[in-house]
Amino acid sequence: MKKVAILMGSDSDLPIVEEAVRTLKSFDIGFEVRVISAHRTPKAAETFSKKAYENNFGVIIAAAGKAAHLAGAVAANTTLPVIGLPIKSSTLDGLDALLSTVQMPAGVPVATVAINGAKNAALLAVQILALADEKLSDKLKEFKENLEAEVLAKDKEIESKINNL
Amino acid sequence: MKKVAILMGSDSDLPIVEEAVRTLKSFDIGFEVRVISAHRTPKAAETFSKKAYENNFGVIIAAAGKAAHLAGAVAANTTLPVIGLPIKSSTLDGLDALLSTVQMPAGVPVATVAINGAKNAALLAVQILALADEKLSDKLKEFKENLEAEVLAKDKEIESKINNL
Amino acid sequence: MKKVAILMGSDSDLPIVEEAVRTLKSFDIGFEVRVISAHRTPKAAETFSKKAYENNFGVIIAAAGKAAHLAGAVAANTTLPVIGLPIKSSTLDGLDALLSTVQMPAGVPVATVAINGAKNAALLAVQILALADEKLSDKLKEFKENLEAEVLAKDKEIESKINNL
Amino acid sequence: MKKVAILMGSDSDLPIVEEAVRTLKSFDIGFEVRVISAHRTPKAAETFSKKAYENNFGVIIAAAGKAAHLAGAVAANTTLPVIGLPIKSSTLDGLDALLSTVQMPAGVPVATVAINGAKNAALLAVQILALADEKLSDKLKEFKENLEAEVLAKDKEIESKINNL
Amino acid sequence: MKKVAILMGSDSDLPIVEEAVRTLKSFDIGFEVRVISAHRTPKAAETFSKKAYENNFGVIIAAAGKAAHLAGAVAANTTLPVIGLPIKSSTLDGLDALLSTVQMPAGVPVATVAINGAKNAALLAVQILALADEKLSDKLKEFKENLEAEVLAKDKEIESKINNL
Amino acid sequence: MKKVAILMGSDSDLPIVEEAVRTLKSFDIGFEVRVISAHRTPKAAETFSKKAYENNFGVIIAAAGKAAHLAGAVAANTTLPVIGLPIKSSTLDGLDALLSTVQMPAGVPVATVAINGAKNAALLAVQILALADEKLSDKLKEFKENLEAEVLAKDKEIESKINNL
Amino acid sequence: MKKVAILMGSDSDLPIVEEAVRTLKSFDIGFEVRVISAHRTPKAAETFSKKAYENNFGVIIAAAGKAAHLAGAVAANTTLPVIGLPIKSSTLDGLDALLSTVQMPAGVPVATVAINGAKNAALLAVQILALADEKLSDKLKEFKENLEAEVLAKDKEIESKINNL
Amino acid sequence: MKKVAILMGSDSDLPIVEEAVRTLKSFDIGFEVRVISAHRTPKAAETFSKKAYENNFGVIIAAAGKAAHLAGAVAANTTLPVIGLPIKSSTLDGLDALLSTVQMPAGVPVATVAINGAKNAALLAVQILALADEKLSDKLKEFKENLEAEVLAKDKEIESKINNL
Repeated sequence: MKKVAILMGSDSDLPIVEEAVRTLKSFDIGFEVRVISAHRTPKAAETFSKKAYENNFGVIIAAAGKAAHLAGAVAANTTLPVIGLPIKSSTLDGLDALLSTVQMPAGVPVATVAINGAKNAALLAVQILALADEKLSDKLKEFKENLEAEVLAKDKEIESKINNL
Repeated sequence: MKKVAILMGSDSDLPIVEEAVRTLKSFDIGFEVRVISAHRTPKAAETFSKKAYENNFGVIIAAAGKAAHLAGAVAANTTLPVIGLPIKSSTLDGLDALLSTVQMPAGVPVATVAINGAKNAALLAVQILALADEKLSDKLKEFKENLEAEVLAKDKEIESKINNL
Repeated sequence: MKKVAILMGSDSDLPIVEEAVRTLKSFDIGFEVRVISAHRTPKAAETFSKKAYENNFGVIIAAAGKAAHLAGAVAANTTLPVIGLPIKSSTLDGLDALLSTVQMPAGVPVATVAINGAKNAALLAVQILALADEKLSDKLKEFKENLEAEVLAKDKEIESKINNL
Repeated sequence: MKKVAILMGSDSDLPIVEEAVRTLKSFDIGFEVRVISAHRTPKAAETFSKKAYENNFGVIIAAAGKAAHLAGAVAANTTLPVIGLPIKSSTLDGLDALLSTVQMPAGVPVATVAINGAKNAALLAVQILALADEKLSDKLKEFKENLEAEVLAKDKEIESKINNL
Repeated sequence: MKKVAILMGSDSDLPIVEEAVRTLKSFDIGFEVRVISAHRTPKAAETFSKKAYENNFGVIIAAAGKAAHLAGAVAANTTLPVIGLPIKSSTLDGLDALLSTVQMPAGVPVATVAINGAKNAALLAVQILALADEKLSDKLKEFKENLEAEVLAKDKEIESKINNL
Repeated sequence: MKKVAILMGSDSDLPIVEEAVRTLKSFDIGFEVRVISAHRTPKAAETFSKKAYENNFGVIIAAAGKAAHLAGAVAANTTLPVIGLPIKSSTLDGLDALLSTVQMPAGVPVATVAINGAKNAALLAVQILALADEKLSDKLKEFKENLEAEVLAKDKEIESKINNL
Repeated sequence: MKKVAILMGSDSDLPIVEEAVRTLKSFDIGFEVRVISAHRTPKAAETFSKKAYENNFGVIIAAAGKAAHLAGAVAANTTLPVIGLPIKSSTLDGLDALLSTVQMPAGVPVATVAINGAKNAALLAVQILALADEKLSDKLKEFKENLEAEVLAKDKEIESKINNL
Repeated sequence: MKKVAILMGSDSDLPIVEEAVRTLKSFDIGFEVRVISAHRTPKAAETFSKKAYENNFGVIIAAAGKAAHLAGAVAANTTLPVIGLPIKSSTLDGLDALLSTVQMPAGVPVATVAINGAKNAALLAVQILALADEKLSDKLKEFKENLEAEVLAKDKEIESKINNL
């Protein structure tokens, strides 16, 4: 099966990004994590992106903050689907990263998830890979059922919490 | 090959959405277009989403404006990748649709593209389908080369335009 | 008398929502609290909403954060008045939840209160129920007088606070 | 049956507000329309609000733009439910009116609908009145079914529109 | 000399507002501080505003957060200059209070200062009163010279701070 | 009586600013209009501001768009009250001018009115001058009564307009 | 003397960018205009940027809209100063381009000018080049004097315009 | 070689600005640090700016928060390139400072860097000075290579961090 790449613009993004790692592990998806910056290691970004297809990657997750160009820089150099994960930094609450990631010009899409939405970035990658992998698709259905079950369980417990208010 | 569904919350979104249709046609992708509203036809949204997998859809594009819930409502009922296309309406310049589409909670991702970015929504769908279709992948590479060629051609013409200023 | 439903998209919203619970209790309004997610338990959301009328609910309060679709998803399936309570989450300061809740398309209104405005969500529910209940209406008038009295009391105390500055 | 009041801060709001009038008429709801400004006719606003209950109003819709205080000023003087309708003006795309209307302090709720969402303001009023009026409730169900039917009809027509692209 | 009124919508605003008090004291301006809410004590707001002129007030400072209507409600009932002081609350960083205060409709101005800008609210009041009071005007000039002197002193000290970096 | 100065950063602001001129004329206030730019004629801005007091100005209105520094630059050089009038330009809907004008640091206030709120800028100037001029104060009261009367007249006409819908 | 490069992400930006061209011409600065896209011709962007120094460019102006990465992509590959010119596109009023251009991570600056501020982008380039060119510096001083003179002339004419109101 | 001036509007900006100082030191650039306020010491700002050229400054960095006029006030009085550094203050997350700094009118550019982007402000100054100084240009290339090397090193270490998750 094709692998998922998780690129982050700075290793300081790891506390957010690690949720994506955990999610991919829970689905037994092969993946690689890289620290690659669109602005500080543009050559590495280009090289990685151009070889991603032949290196058997199926989806690339790119996490970056502020003027978050990483996802766009990768998408410029591959035809693989690129998932943009905007990271909240110390100012503007992630709005800069969101707009820099999602507002791509026609011809070069980036599949953007919520600010700091690392888990969803990974899940989206799994959904994409599952199109050609029925077993993975079944795991996703199971995941979805568990997600529902967890909320239903919380729903059952809420009454007692309310009574204790 | 799996088909692409294009859902729009209102048929008034068609002038924007038609660019997605044209793009899918240019890649010879099978597709269906539907007018389905998360708020006015919730049953149709649910039914479509739940059967999308067995009806041989691979990706679902959901276009909506304002409090744009369509993509999220579909994603709640399928494990297929859902592409959210925020539509600009008469107030707030599409920011409401963008945030309503992209800020999904953990567990239910929506792959969001730019406000009114219909062409990119379609291209992202093609990129996803191309993972399991080498011919389609080749077409995407060709598309990318053409995209580059067009800009390079514009680059050659610019000098004469500048001289005429 | 008809009951009020308080739905929250996640039980992590309880610290905000509990003010609504306390307010309904203070008016002796019957209510039920549920954890229901538009995205993770869409079936529960639909079922609850469709049966809310026959289950003797008069008003539904729906609290959710980020791409807050809960109120809209409920409103899509009932003709009861639905009060949307946008919850502030870790990014964007609640603006995403506010716009996702209030910017509903024509035909499906959501009565939106302030970000984290749980007390007002409950008071609005009480105001609505009081239309058909003169006693409740009298309680509201008393509440309003107390509200005024509290501020008038604070006004009397302010001079001494100022003198101590 | 109780009546609905539609207040607008300026008669220049009428082109937006008239959709609310039409909607109330279509439900055969008694209503009165008034031009009342929180800032230019504060006495009229106060008098109207204080007497609204005894004058047999059940719900008050208040439409205003910019620093839209009308809904809040009315809510300060009545225990009836007040629906705030933020009007877009020449700058800031209605964001000022939305925030001025919805961000009410604890104790004095305003049920806010979308910017320029006059139809929904009226529908919300109908939903509130319908709590004590089964016939009106039935009309709302019929309205909801028609709303769904219209979209379903649009859905049937879309294929031919697409083929003509 | 005419007095300054400082109104605050809630006594929780005092930690911000007290800087205004201190500033007025430093200029020996007579003042009164009141807790008056546009929404919870509308009658007090109206009464105060209508009598402010005859009660020998010259300027009114109104501090409020969220949907900050206090300054507007006062301005609606007096021809005295009203200074609006937007207070930052727990969401939206004060933007709601700023827009609710400054975006007043034609005919009823509010002189708005920065979010949480209590000192400037007081200084503006002093500037206004100084128009008819040469001594006060001289104090303002002295204040301005001191302000300049403080920065010039800081400027002299900066070199040593920099050397210690 | 003291005069009012109206400064505008560019003569292209005149279509907005002229409403201020008309308003001052209607109150028979002496005034001067100047085109002075904080950035292009900083010397003129400084000179004007420093001499404004001795040149018998009582209030200065400063209108500017984009990074609107004019009001602040004037306030830096005078102790007279300065009214900032933010002008909407071709991008950002006036938000840049509003924030550049209102968010002044402690010590140097600018009395800011609504974006493009030229009439209110003039009225605020009149209110300030009226503190020391009982006749002017009476005119303001008359103006306020007329303002109210106009709305009351509109209120009387609205019923027939509604009937014609 | 070193030349200035003007890159634009799309030739549709020319109507804005041409003001930069005219300004450079008026200062007799050598320049080249190119259509280069960070996303569609990334190789051209890289090649141009890496060779800019040896090709005798001194400053690079990069104009782009939406998720405007061009300036950042160039800055990643050169040590020359890069001026970012954010272009307003059909949604979000240029805010997306501004944030994508200015919020660069530490290590890779972009000198950002106003949205659509093409003239200032060119003037900034001239100011930079003038550091090593006294004649050019003199021309800038002359330009500044003319700028001042133009406003002073407008100031003289304003009185008659006002009298005609 | 020409020096760099670092101006800050308040010495409370030093914790942010000191990164600029360190960066200039690391490049052995001569510099002076000043506390100069556009609003509180306008004369100092004017004097400094007008003499900056003859005092052998090549670039001026101006750091300020809120209605950040310092960079603009300096740019109004010099033809040297001025770098604006917007400082985040206690409200609005630096958006006010960013817009006040970057949205300069045509004729008077300010080269704006990211909110709190002190390091980039200094690097931009170095890039500008390096145009006429080959040695400095070589240092910049070395800096850029180190920047890249640091990220490449982080990239090598990330795998083990991930394994430890």
